[in-house]
Amino acid sequence: MATQSSRAFFVPEERRGRVADLYRRVRAHTEALAAPLSAEDQTIQSMPDASPTKWHRAHTTWFFETFVLKPFAPDYTPYDEAFGYLFNSYYEAVGPRHARPLRGLLSRPGIETIAAYRAHVDTAMERVLESCSDEVLERVILGAHHEQQHQELLLTDIKHALHANPTFPSYSSERVATLPRPVPPLEWQPVKGGIHSVGHTPSQDVLEFAFDNETPAHEVLLRDFAIADRPVSNGEFRAFIADGGYRRPELWLSEGWATVQAQLWEAPEYWHRRGEEWHVFTLHGLRRVRDDEPVCHVSFFEAAAYAEWANCRLPTEFEWEVAARQFGNLSRDVWEWTASPYSPYPGYRPLSGALGEYNGKFMINQMVLRGRSCATPQGHERLTYRNFFPPAARWQFSGFRLASP
Amino acid sequence: MATQSSRAFFVPEERRGRVADLYRRVRAHTEALAAPLSAEDQTIQSMPDASPTKWHRAHTTWFFETFVLKPFAPDYTPYDEAFGYLFNSYYEAVGPRHARPLRGLLSRPGIETIAAYRAHVDTAMERVLESCSDEVLERVILGAHHEQQHQELLLTDIKHALHANPTFPSYSSERVATLPRPVPPLEWQPVKGGIHSVGHTPSQDVLEFAFDNETPAHEVLLRDFAIADRPVSNGEFRAFIADGGYRRPELWLSEGWATVQAQLWEAPEYWHRRGEEWHVFTLHGLRRVRDDEPVCHVSFFEAAAYAEWANCRLPTEFEWEVAARQFGNLSRDVWEWTASPYSPYPGYRPLSGALGEYNGKFMINQMVLRGRSCATPQGHERLTYRNFFPPAARWQFSGFRLASP
Amino acid sequence: MATQSSRAFFVPEERRGRVADLYRRVRAHTEALAAPLSAEDQTIQSMPDASPTKWHRAHTTWFFETFVLKPFAPDYTPYDEAFGYLFNSYYEAVGPRHARPLRGLLSRPGIETIAAYRAHVDTAMERVLESCSDEVLERVILGAHHEQQHQELLLTDIKHALHANPTFPSYSSERVATLPRPVPPLEWQPVKGGIHSVGHTPSQDVLEFAFDNETPAHEVLLRDFAIADRPVSNGEFRAFIADGGYRRPELWLSEGWATVQAQLWEAPEYWHRRGEEWHVFTLHGLRRVRDDEPVCHVSFFEAAAYAEWANCRLPTEFEWEVAARQFGNLSRDVWEWTASPYSPYPGYRPLSGALGEYNGKFMINQMVLRGRSCATPQGHERLTYRNFFPPAARWQFSGFRLASP
Amino acid sequence: MATQSSRAFFVPEERRGRVADLYRRVRAHTEALAAPLSAEDQTIQSMPDASPTKWHRAHTTWFFETFVLKPFAPDYTPYDEAFGYLFNSYYEAVGPRHARPLRGLLSRPGIETIAAYRAHVDTAMERVLESCSDEVLERVILGAHHEQQHQELLLTDIKHALHANPTFPSYSSERVATLPRPVPPLEWQPVKGGIHSVGHTPSQDVLEFAFDNETPAHEVLLRDFAIADRPVSNGEFRAFIADGGYRRPELWLSEGWATVQAQLWEAPEYWHRRGEEWHVFTLHGLRRVRDDEPVCHVSFFEAAAYAEWANCRLPTEFEWEVAARQFGNLSRDVWEWTASPYSPYPGYRPLSGALGEYNGKFMINQMVLRGRSCATPQGHERLTYRNFFPPAARWQFSGFRLASP
Repeated sequence: MATQSSRAFFVPEERRGRVADLYRRVRAHTEALAAPLSAEDQTIQSMPDASPTKWHRAHTTWFFETFVLKPFAPDYTPYDEAFGYLFNSYYEAVGPRHARPLRGLLSRPGIETIAAYRAHVDTAMERVLESCSDEVLERVILGAHHEQQHQELLLTDIKHALHANPTFPSYSSERVATLPRPVPPLEWQPVKGGIHSVGHTPSQDVLEFAFDNETPAHEVLLRDFAIADRPVSNGEFRAFIADGGYRRPELWLSEGWATVQAQLWEAPEYWHRRGEEWHVFTLHGLRRVRDDEPVCHVSFFEAAAYAEWANCRLPTEFEWEVAARQFGNLSRDVWEWTASPYSPYPGYRPLSGALGEYNGKFMINQMVLRGRSCATPQGHERLTYRNFFPPAARWQFSGFRLASP
Repeated sequence: MATQSSRAFFVPEERRGRVADLYRRVRAHTEALAAPLSAEDQTIQSMPDASPTKWHRAHTTWFFETFVLKPFAPDYTPYDEAFGYLFNSYYEAVGPRHARPLRGLLSRPGIETIAAYRAHVDTAMERVLESCSDEVLERVILGAHHEQQHQELLLTDIKHALHANPTFPSYSSERVATLPRPVPPLEWQPVKGGIHSVGHTPSQDVLEFAFDNETPAHEVLLRDFAIADRPVSNGEFRAFIADGGYRRPELWLSEGWATVQAQLWEAPEYWHRRGEEWHVFTLHGLRRVRDDEPVCHVSFFEAAAYAEWANCRLPTEFEWEVAARQFGNLSRDVWEWTASPYSPYPGYRPLSGALGEYNGKFMINQMVLRGRSCATPQGHERLTYRNFFPPAARWQFSGFRLASP
Repeated sequence: MATQSSRAFFVPEERRGRVADLYRRVRAHTEALAAPLSAEDQTIQSMPDASPTKWHRAHTTWFFETFVLKPFAPDYTPYDEAFGYLFNSYYEAVGPRHARPLRGLLSRPGIETIAAYRAHVDTAMERVLESCSDEVLERVILGAHHEQQHQELLLTDIKHALHANPTFPSYSSERVATLPRPVPPLEWQPVKGGIHSVGHTPSQDVLEFAFDNETPAHEVLLRDFAIADRPVSNGEFRAFIADGGYRRPELWLSEGWATVQAQLWEAPEYWHRRGEEWHVFTLHGLRRVRDDEPVCHVSFFEAAAYAEWANCRLPTEFEWEVAARQFGNLSRDVWEWTASPYSPYPGYRPLSGALGEYNGKFMINQMVLRGRSCATPQGHERLTYRNFFPPAARWQFSGFRLASP
Repeated sequence: MATQSSRAFFVPEERRGRVADLYRRVRAHTEALAAPLSAEDQTIQSMPDASPTKWHRAHTTWFFETFVLKPFAPDYTPYDEAFGYLFNSYYEAVGPRHARPLRGLLSRPGIETIAAYRAHVDTAMERVLESCSDEVLERVILGAHHEQQHQELLLTDIKHALHANPTFPSYSSERVATLPRPVPPLEWQPVKGGIHSVGHTPSQDVLEFAFDNETPAHEVLLRDFAIADRPVSNGEFRAFIADGGYRRPELWLSEGWATVQAQLWEAPEYWHRRGEEWHVFTLHGLRRVRDDEPVCHVSFFEAAAYAEWANCRLPTEFEWEVAARQFGNLSRDVWEWTASPYSPYPGYRPLSGALGEYNGKFMINQMVLRGRSCATPQGHERLTYRNFFPPAARWQFSGFRLASP
């Protein structure tokens, strides 16, 4: 995050106005995403890695309360002191917090109280945004991007929760995200090796932003390679399944194979065989698998096994980024697993204080995903964006693309 | 259950009317118990042994649908075929069912649908009750007692769920159950040994009922003994704690001591130390422990350890029953652990068919509790009633009384 | 244990001689049982409930060291102070102890040191037995019976451990226990109900002994019943399997059915299907199942399911004992599960001090077995003997017999 | 492994002789390492990640039997067909295998049979080595390096197993490995950035060898950095402990902090506080911690937390390798955790067939360690050697060194 950049040449009022717009737009979008969900829907938690909808709504609000209002709005009265405990996610420096696997046990506060909490904080934030320092604006921008991340999680988490219901209920009968498009025949795009620059370089944009883990920009040495012009499709992945992909240990990483056996995987998450047909559970209910869509809800282990089967490999995150700079953002529908473990960039320093717990402390046992997905809010994506999840995670909208050699 | 008894001497209309009254009264009471709870409250499940409020509401309804309407109301249309799967508790003979530990993941059906389901079944039941056989009436009576059991569980389960919330919310600001009363000094009541009759003998009452596990009535041989005239109080139990009761392995059964260490028990469930004071979480929130109330929410292990410490013992279930016949029902506030493992009476036969899964199949690794508690619905108790829970269970309203020698 | 009995009419020397003989015979038998086992065999532990052979050898020695030599032999020098920690089984009053599931991690002391430890204690015991009080003799008798119990466990535990080896090695090519005999057609033996006396009454025998849990003798009220004249055979049990016994939940206790599913039971422990044939792992290796032998290595759950399937029931422990008094000891080859949970007899008091931890503290969640097995040492059985194990245990030599009605 | 290198210019006899020498030397060293251990010591397994000594002895033998004798010695008779199942470690392509966590349950074959198995294979190997192809020699060299890896594991695993014994027995009273030396004051060594070559380039040495994961050699782009001239010492690490290092979440990776709390870590593995003093369990028993030795038996998490505390970082594996080329092998006593996740080098291809399961399939959720340790057999180390373990592993001889900036 570009905390150091001075933007004195901006008219401050213009910047405040643009940030306030961003704030309002993001906050309203969260509420729009939660709107189709009942009080019961918003309460349940189907696994420790996922959180209830109402928790996402409260936690993103807690973020502004904790990092903007408490330090910078002297007359701010917290909505409820207990919320600091209930809705802290993982910030050790901010104090103790409610255990993550128990979030689904919080029937109170109910969704009406959560709505009131959001309104209370929004009102206070409006006052702050009328006149505040650049440091505050930076934090508001960070908070907006943080909330956008939770918007995507809200969708992945409710999808997982509704899928736990044997009646397979729909999140919504309307589509909330870009429709998947047909997939053309795969073509290989060659990329020249050599020294390339990767990572985020701050711009002069008034809403300029990147997470700390995208910095500092630096140079990497790549070899010549080719990258597929689109992600692997459902149709292609079905061929892998049909060829015994889930039953051939030689294709898998050792830990991946152990996971296949322990979890009884035989297809991507949310796929169900109905007689001869594969169906897939979506936010709009169960429907047939379409061969022309990118395969989605696969783990890194499945991506790597497929690549082995196809006698290819996954691109590294830097290959992905360099290709994306060259050909335009590669991804629209699914996050794409890369071959890169999630590590700090050379010279990386996290933000100072509690905000520094945002990214760096997760840099172990996770793999980088690049691109964006159908559930990523508009305006949240970046070529340098580094998403990351453990290699066995499947509940995100995650697919992959091939590279060679 | 006295299925064999003929009551031809009753005017059938009178009996139908009485049973219909019972049905309506019980059904309404369930709704009254759920009324203080929000949609969120009714959805959560805090442990595998407990169920969500809305599940209790639906399951008791499913019972009438499955065992009365489907077999005896030819034109009955099930409300939703999926509910047979979702709301079956443990009846193997009725088909597969939703796994118990996952009940808290069912956001749908929501509480409004549950209310509609109950109304749908009630309407159909009213038509059945207008003209039906004695066999049907027996099943309605059984269903009513089944629902009363779930009324008590609804309260014990929501208490456990609300306690999982660090803000300790109240179920209700009004008292829903009999107020505990002051406890007089303990006195010993002598009972003569010899051959005594125990268990349920069917009466001529039009609403005659007992669970199959209370039958057949039979004779047992007892020795002379004395039984305390009231359960052990909080004040007495605090003396046990103060004397190191939770730290002295010689007082405990081996498995009890292992549980103390694994669960870090140092007081009854729901007790919290605040400085020098013990507080207790109740359905009406956190308040100070009153020494004059019966100790509650203790396991069999704690009851047995206390008895060892007091150089006494727990009464057997037959001693309890014989004493209760002699002195009147011994218990009002807490179920009382006895020294008796839950076993079949000599000559016991369960009900035939799926209804036979009610009691007998749980006759292992459980201890019998006798009496009733503050959460037991009026009209549900009986001198011969056999409640049963595993020896480590603490979330029921369970206390105990001493016997000697 | 008959601590109260006075035997002043015995010539003390005669009694000491007889007890010393018992001591030597029992000690030698343990070594004979261990003799066929290598150092490696004696070290492994295949589950928390089982113990390594060398641990049995050491623990039984520790018992005499702790309860006889330390209190009664003033000049006794312990072999190794650390052994008090390593070889205490569960006596809380004697101090901390090595965790049971970790016994298989003790490579040291090795079997030669164990042998030296045994010799060291035996030497000291001989000196004690030359002149000692009646109290000491009582303890020696108790220690001998304790060691006999461990002799049977040594065999059941090594059987389990060797079975964990995919090569199915034999304990010994020689038979160590009574050969099973052919099973005649089942006949029912009627027994008159009424008041019967059960439990142990001390005799005037110089080696008089019973465990505390067999006392006090007392009266029980039984109904008329009939009991099978032999245990259920392998052939009969195979009919249960063939009739889908392991796939029919209505035959099982609820917890039993859960165990069947979790453990994938489909036959008794140690049975292996080889094509169309059932084979069974024995202490002498794998061989075909003989239909005429009593079924063995079944849990209480399987016994109860079989009885349900056969439209019979298991006898209570008192029915078993009364029948055994009438017809002679019923059992030779397998311990027999009864319908009785393991509870204290009326008026039961455990031995005082650490020795009181022997039996009473296990009186929960266990079922009583009566009789004896092919692995029970000669002279260890009694009509009043109460063996006990959790209802899911199968590694003991456990079978069952039917009762009716 | 340099399978592609042609060494036609060698006199084949000379090469065979050298390889045979290597084979004999390595095989003899394994036996020397096992010699101080009793049959019992060699049998136990203290955790799933560790293996019994006798399993190491057998598995390394199985490797030659499977990959050399069976394919290349037509008249070879396997010692025991069951050993293919018992002593396969993780080679899926070779068939099913005995589960890793159960290796400690194998009392049979005993150590004498293992010795006979080794002799049987050695005899057959000698015959093969008299006249064999270059392909076979390559496999023998691989097998020798494989056995050397297990020699180190044999020591780390028996150390862990002996430590599980509360009496803390010694492996040996003689020192088996290089003595630790005093640690001089730390100095920083600057290294110039730019493009550097890393990884293994095959040499013309007759015993030329590297694991496939060290290839292909390739170029990397580094920045200027400085690296400590020695690993962090016990004295320095004690300052970290004294400064609350194990109690300050801000120093730790999130998963590391969770591990600290779950495992109750408060010092390196094998450290024990005795009053005011830290002691450490070694292969020669318990002794005081010496401040001047490198800290050992720390996880990656602890290394990373220390680096954070010291305001430094860990070097990447490439920084480590470039520095080692410049200054000589950096490490003698402890493997050194690097900041690099274990990933394939660009263009990496595993060996073909079952031998390809050696390295590549573990390239997930592990961190690279460089250097060697006091337990590494002589001749086994290389500048390009990549050791790897999960970030929580502590039972290896693992330390670390700092880098900056």
